[in-house]
Amino acid sequence: MNTSSPAHRADAPRLDLDIDRVHALAEDLLPVYAQIRADAPLPDASLNGKLSELTGILHELHPADMAALLESLPPKERVLVWRLAGPEDDGDVLLEVSEAVRETLIEAMNREEMLAAVEDMDADELAELADDLPHQVVYEALQTRDEEEREQVKAAMSYEDGTIGALMDFEPVSVRADVSCEVVLRYLRRFDALPDHTDKIFVVDEEDVLIGVLPVRKLLISNPEDLVADVMATDVVRFSPEDDAEEAAQAFERYDLVTAPVIDASGKLIGRITIDEMVDVIREESEADILNMAGLQEEEDLFAPVWDSVKNRWTWLAVNLCTAFVASRVIGAFEGSIQKIVALAALMPIVAGIGGNSGNQTITMIVRAMAVGQLADIQAGRLLKKEVGVALANGLIWGSVMGALSYALYGSIGIGLVMVAAMTLNLLLAAAVGVLIPIAMEKLGRDPALGSSVLITAVTDSGGFLIFLGLATVFLM
Amino acid sequence: MNTSSPAHRADAPRLDLDIDRVHALAEDLLPVYAQIRADAPLPDASLNGKLSELTGILHELHPADMAALLESLPPKERVLVWRLAGPEDDGDVLLEVSEAVRETLIEAMNREEMLAAVEDMDADELAELADDLPHQVVYEALQTRDEEEREQVKAAMSYEDGTIGALMDFEPVSVRADVSCEVVLRYLRRFDALPDHTDKIFVVDEEDVLIGVLPVRKLLISNPEDLVADVMATDVVRFSPEDDAEEAAQAFERYDLVTAPVIDASGKLIGRITIDEMVDVIREESEADILNMAGLQEEEDLFAPVWDSVKNRWTWLAVNLCTAFVASRVIGAFEGSIQKIVALAALMPIVAGIGGNSGNQTITMIVRAMAVGQLADIQAGRLLKKEVGVALANGLIWGSVMGALSYALYGSIGIGLVMVAAMTLNLLLAAAVGVLIPIAMEKLGRDPALGSSVLITAVTDSGGFLIFLGLATVFLM
Repeated sequence: MNTSSPAHRADAPRLDLDIDRVHALAEDLLPVYAQIRADAPLPDASLNGKLSELTGILHELHPADMAALLESLPPKERVLVWRLAGPEDDGDVLLEVSEAVRETLIEAMNREEMLAAVEDMDADELAELADDLPHQVVYEALQTRDEEEREQVKAAMSYEDGTIGALMDFEPVSVRADVSCEVVLRYLRRFDALPDHTDKIFVVDEEDVLIGVLPVRKLLISNPEDLVADVMATDVVRFSPEDDAEEAAQAFERYDLVTAPVIDASGKLIGRITIDEMVDVIREESEADILNMAGLQEEEDLFAPVWDSVKNRWTWLAVNLCTAFVASRVIGAFEGSIQKIVALAALMPIVAGIGGNSGNQTITMIVRAMAVGQLADIQAGRLLKKEVGVALANGLIWGSVMGALSYALYGSIGIGLVMVAAMTLNLLLAAAVGVLIPIAMEKLGRDPALGSSVLITAVTDSGGFLIFLGLATVFLM
Repeated sequence: MNTSSPAHRADAPRLDLDIDRVHALAEDLLPVYAQIRADAPLPDASLNGKLSELTGILHELHPADMAALLESLPPKERVLVWRLAGPEDDGDVLLEVSEAVRETLIEAMNREEMLAAVEDMDADELAELADDLPHQVVYEALQTRDEEEREQVKAAMSYEDGTIGALMDFEPVSVRADVSCEVVLRYLRRFDALPDHTDKIFVVDEEDVLIGVLPVRKLLISNPEDLVADVMATDVVRFSPEDDAEEAAQAFERYDLVTAPVIDASGKLIGRITIDEMVDVIREESEADILNMAGLQEEEDLFAPVWDSVKNRWTWLAVNLCTAFVASRVIGAFEGSIQKIVALAALMPIVAGIGGNSGNQTITMIVRAMAVGQLADIQAGRLLKKEVGVALANGLIWGSVMGALSYALYGSIGIGLVMVAAMTLNLLLAAAVGVLIPIAMEKLGRDPALGSSVLITAVTDSGGFLIFLGLATVFLM
């Protein structure tokens, strides 16, 4: 993709081309940051050249590209680049970056810069930023708005993260049903600009209650004399401010929506939700699942201070240590057997490992099916049967391979047979627990993705050691 | 969300309400499927009631909801529901379902039904389905199209999966730059319907070369006498058919696009790409990462036959077994030490486990940063330094906790100290490898997500055993 001359090829829809250059320039200019800030002359000409090159690149960037660039920079270079960027897009950039990076950017701004950045923002945007700005700045910014906008900011801030209310904007364009399409077109022409993503006009009655939508696609092809009431669609996907954003995103995805109305309890049109917010929700939801599975609590600034990273990660490490300790005590209970047949110590991690791997496959598949709403309660038994079948097949195949190898290594048929049995049993355990954990989590009203991987590994580790060492103790001692 | 009367609350943006009921009905009707197919009378009245209830529900479903429902059903119930659904949406449903499920649905259709389903499809949709349909059906379907459409189907089928060419449609509405907005509005009114998601009209010259876009938002507020050339935007995000779909999706996300033009090598407008396709790409990309990390090759039909599932999962299980075998041989090399101090066998999985968990945190963070293009080469050294710092902090903290516990359990200061040292060293190893593996994978032109989790666990397992048993052998024997 390119955004300049039509002659260019569309083969680089990202800023990879510049990013390394910007990094190099920022690193070179860092030592003279004090002079740059003070507008003092730089020590040599080459640095002056680099400074104007960097400033030139930065002033051409789209705010979204600037945000991505800032996220990729270490803290000091990030502040340098942020100071060199033109201030006109400050507000847009602050809205685009992740929360962790936003904090570091705001720290580098003074009161006037912050006020300038939020000056042209819509109420919903100001509300989004308000938590990260100093109270005094938010207060002053609100003073310049009229009563209606202040109410909108307050309303937007009152909704919890992850609800439609926190994501909606207050820009729905609405018309009455009893006017003609011609009147609607004339009315629209009076706007200086229509809100982003306007793909439909909302139709309301005299009480502002939503009664339908007029898709722009239909408006454009309609006869000018047609009444809105005759052209509009009445089977409208609509949301309440309290609705869950992830479920709304699924609806946008499923019904291919671009915008949707938000109504209050009495059916009045109060706002609008747009596809760009929903795409962010979809992206963040998948990110959160991936991070949770790996035991990270939240998205980290890549260059966060060491101590922040330690805090972000310690919970899951602690959980992991507890479950590892339990597994260790299981082994401890069989020290006598290990002392007699030391080969058991070498073979036991294989049994635990394959159980963990296979269990993670099962649980991931089921968690994903749940996330997209594909799993009905009635099917748990059927899924369990299937997964047990898969586990049995894998257990017999791979168990036999490993049993044969163990026999070859240690020359004991007993060890080989215990290996086959233990691997098969641990895979069956993994299948059962892999189906049951996410279903139980969902029943308890918890997110099945969160920690499911740690839980299953805990079961297959301790369980694997117990099964393998237990069988060995019974049959080989 | 609801799609019926405005009085309803918007609190259930999914079909959860019906899904369990549909499952129950389908299960009850399954035994009399033969009679239903033959239109024979059902044995009792209650079954007749259930049949009409189910048919009623199915006939009201949006094709996207029908697709989700079919994916959630086991094979036999799926065919029953598919046969009871009204045939008018067959084509849309086939386009919505996953490929695995699509195959099972097509198997249940005869030639006439397939031809009816694809009859009204656009060229790009027919191309998407063509691989899954019998050759004869595709051939007959193409016979009913004109030459231009046949060419479009052929073109769409010629592009590789994962490129823009395979996802674009052939419906761009275009105008010339030298006409007035009034003329454009009149031209649009001649359409029976505008393509989905039309948020901009493409502006081309007499050679069909793209020279700009006219956003509908601007068209609606423009003065009717204004020339398109004066209103249009010329800094247009555009794509080539060969472009990577994931990178295009990032551009859609970053620049909040709804549609974008696709041009050929000479700059001619040949098609259009829409946000709904890009949302699917974003969703699938994250899904693929999650599945890959868990060692599943591709999305599975939840109710796939056991043998299909075994095949989908066996590669990663095999890789896991190989790495587990290596780790086992590392332990085997220290059998003498374990025989002398059997406590080592119980403690070694703790060292390996925490390394794996911590390494997975590091690698996940870096792989995610790479996926969104946030990581420049120049930063590898800096990241490594930070991760090593985090590992050192975690190693000393958690190592001391476990060292103290080991001392308390086994009464040996030596074991406690070896534990502290081994955990710290294995965490440092995990940090180093966690940074270096994804960077090396990227340098080699491979997807850093694929298998990174298995690789890091392999290193931290074998490495952890080696470090712990090695230290114990040197200092405690």
